[in-house]
Amino acid sequence: MDVLPDKTTLRHWLSAHRDRPRVLVPTMGALHRGHTSLFDRARTEAGRIGGEVIATIFVNPTQFAPHEDFDAYPRPLEADLALCRAHGVDAVFTPVAHEMYAPDRSITVSESRLSTTLCGASRPGHFDGVCTVVAKLFLLTQPALAVFGEKDFQQLAVIRRMVRDLDFPIGIIGAPTVREEDRLALSSRNVYLSSEERAQAPILQRALATTARGIASGDLATPETARVHFLAAFADATLARLDYFEIVDASTLEPLQSFGANEPRLLAAAFFGKTRLIDNVEVS
Amino acid sequence: MDVLPDKTTLRHWLSAHRDRPRVLVPTMGALHRGHTSLFDRARTEAGRIGGEVIATIFVNPTQFAPHEDFDAYPRPLEADLALCRAHGVDAVFTPVAHEMYAPDRSITVSESRLSTTLCGASRPGHFDGVCTVVAKLFLLTQPALAVFGEKDFQQLAVIRRMVRDLDFPIGIIGAPTVREEDRLALSSRNVYLSSEERAQAPILQRALATTARGIASGDLATPETARVHFLAAFADATLARLDYFEIVDASTLEPLQSFGANEPRLLAAAFFGKTRLIDNVEVS
Repeated sequence: MDVLPDKTTLRHWLSAHRDRPRVLVPTMGALHRGHTSLFDRARTEAGRIGGEVIATIFVNPTQFAPHEDFDAYPRPLEADLALCRAHGVDAVFTPVAHEMYAPDRSITVSESRLSTTLCGASRPGHFDGVCTVVAKLFLLTQPALAVFGEKDFQQLAVIRRMVRDLDFPIGIIGAPTVREEDRLALSSRNVYLSSEERAQAPILQRALATTARGIASGDLATPETARVHFLAAFADATLARLDYFEIVDASTLEPLQSFGANEPRLLAAAFFGKTRLIDNVEVS
Repeated sequence: MDVLPDKTTLRHWLSAHRDRPRVLVPTMGALHRGHTSLFDRARTEAGRIGGEVIATIFVNPTQFAPHEDFDAYPRPLEADLALCRAHGVDAVFTPVAHEMYAPDRSITVSESRLSTTLCGASRPGHFDGVCTVVAKLFLLTQPALAVFGEKDFQQLAVIRRMVRDLDFPIGIIGAPTVREEDRLALSSRNVYLSSEERAQAPILQRALATTARGIASGDLATPETARVHFLAAFADATLARLDYFEIVDASTLEPLQSFGANEPRLLAAAFFGKTRLIDNVEVS
């Protein structure tokens, strides 16, 4: 596996491997089984197209708000590289911030519809940071395919929209959320939870899942009754403060007024202490 | 020469020509000798790299403000294609607006420093429209090089900035302004001028050129004396209303406070009746 610490080494690698298409997995490091499932999926896709897997590890400052955890975000680079190696990644691009951003940088890629609600409402500027850095990583690594986790469902929808609206010649693959035994979604932020918070955290997924089952069975016939059900189920998480719960169209992320032709997706975010967790489920 | 009316035919063409690098010339049509000089330059560059020349003709609605001349903008497609053919263009992409923009499009590429002054001050949103469409055309045509005219000097600087900040793997070539016998810069908008306005229009270039010569000779020792000189010289254009005159650093477009290490560029815009003309000169 090749470790590429800057744009120059990346460009040399691309030039030496120019005959083979690439499958990209962009990450912020602090890798866990959620990420390695993306590497595994990328490996499968790369096999299918005769290509190679390139991962990126970059804790992107522009997607953190000033009060958020950029400085504290975990950066276990050696362990991350070992996981990449063990899961068949061919090359890892690991730039530092000043390699990615000039001091007088002035270009932003922004999304104005899908990104204003849900996580975007409580994290202003976050998705501009995500779109801009993902556009840069796409242009730097020039992949045929890129794999993102469904765990960050709004991010996935925003990136699909960016690819569509800017005509990136890249296929986007959404990969299912990986969960702990108790169904808590894997996240680099789970390490911040106290043991009491960790014990209650799976209630977020459980409330989403029972609500989704109620919608699928017809017991919860309207978005409003589904919301009442979710809130009652989530009330068991006494240490948590709900940020949002929404039932949206899976591709436009617009709140559903009724269950009809649309494909519904249930998304929620909640603070356990200072730690903000997100999760989402489909209705099937 | 291949005419490619939509993304599907463009992709087929790219796929069939994938072994050869491309030199792109994006235009809004209404082609004149200014544009054909860009095709000629692209042809030379293509010869150098063993590549092909692709032009685009697209009157981009998002870079016109509501009160501007989008509907009236000339669209002489057959004459434009004949000029492309005569100047060695290999393929022309000629999409319609709904091919380029989904009704629910929501991604914008914006520039926040270079684009707020000069033309950007009187055309809010213009450079967002330019950046977004040029990013799309770059991603659709995937060129190795792209040629833009120095006539739109601020646009050229903004596009260089976009390429740098988003890491587009594309070289940008600025080509010199082509002028009429009386030194008026060629522009698709010159046809809007009355004969009286047309007679006065070259005063814009003349005032810029004499100011630049005064700076080069040292007679105009400060930006302020240079401004006084320009305004006096431009006063001869009795039918014109000056929009701006600025002496800026050629790469940052920041106004110069003195003539020192920077490379100065003189830029001006003026209305002749309803027609807004722009021009710029170097100091050499």
